Amino acid sequence: MDVFEAIRGRRSIRKFEDRPVKIEVLQRLIETGTWAPSGGNWQTWRFVILTEKSMVRKIKMVSPGLLGDPPALIAICQDTKEAERKGGRLGVESVSQMDTAMAAQNIMLAAYALDLGTCPIASFHKHAVRRLLRLPEEIVPQLLISVGYPKETPAPPKRKTEGICFLERYNE
Amino acid sequence: MDVFEAIRGRRSIRKFEDRPVKIEVLQRLIETGTWAPSGGNWQTWRFVILTEKSMVRKIKMVSPGLLGDPPALIAICQDTKEAERKGGRLGVESVSQMDTAMAAQNIMLAAYALDLGTCPIASFHKHAVRRLLRLPEEIVPQLLISVGYPKETPAPPKRKTEGICFLERYNE
Repeated sequence: MDVFEAIRGRRSIRKFEDRPVKIEVLQRLIETGTWAPSGGNWQTWRFVILTEKSMVRKIKMVSPGLLGDPPALIAICQDTKEAERKGGRLGVESVSQMDTAMAAQNIMLAAYALDLGTCPIASFHKHAVRRLLRLPEEIVPQLLISVGYPKETPAPPKRKTEGICFLERYNE
Repeated sequence: MDVFEAIRGRRSIRKFEDRPVKIEVLQRLIETGTWAPSGGNWQTWRFVILTEKSMVRKIKMVSPGLLGDPPALIAICQDTKEAERKGGRLGVESVSQMDTAMAAQNIMLAAYALDLGTCPIASFHKHAVRRLLRLPEEIVPQLLISVGYPKETPAPPKRKTEGICFLERYNE
């Protein structure tokens, strides 16, 4: 699929078919995530694939942002100890989050090209997710991505086109 | 260009030809950025295109992360007041940064498909950049992207493949 087509066509999907996504496909998506740039090439992200129904259900219970019943989730986490060691406060508080999001965007575009739907979820109870995934203290979950075969074709949401792009200086 | 090809082929570029990038091309890149998801569809990003040589030079002086002499920069900023009003602390400190980075990833992939090179830059003096771009108080620059025709073809940096992907639980 053409990259511009993927960028324009990807929608956030919140209704999924009751059909599993193969582990190999999820691993392939994660590989595309690892091709995103990371600050200083530190690659401090860690990925956890979730496909057990009971696990997805438990995560959903602690994630207000998770809508629908996706057959799979990818939890993108960061080794915050490593991020801090390498990038200080900027590394943990900013760069690691951006690294997570750039990897996520690759994953969502690649998923769309494979006929899968995704939705990024930032609203979840971090402590509960950490416990469910048995994450060590330094590994922090930053973003969940639901993955599944879409049961809806949402129209593009309204996009701002005015007042968002400036030339040389703000308000010019 | 195929989306997987763009994801795998994109490199961070730090040597650029002395050749301008058309404003319309930069605007097209920014449009691809606006197709990235944003938390709650808030679209609190703002983009500033920089092509004046004196301006790029000044930004470079306050940006340790900016290497080489790109003919253009895109500054991705966030309306933090709006982000906080809509998403509270999570909105400002996390979601807005992820929104910036997802838009950036679209921009960098699209640029690669158009034979342009890019590099994301998180290390810059925020206050100085704000002053140079004449940003109002609520508009915060989060990421710079250098854009230009590449004068190098870097090999892919070494990628972690071990110990980064887990199934169902960490360490499993």
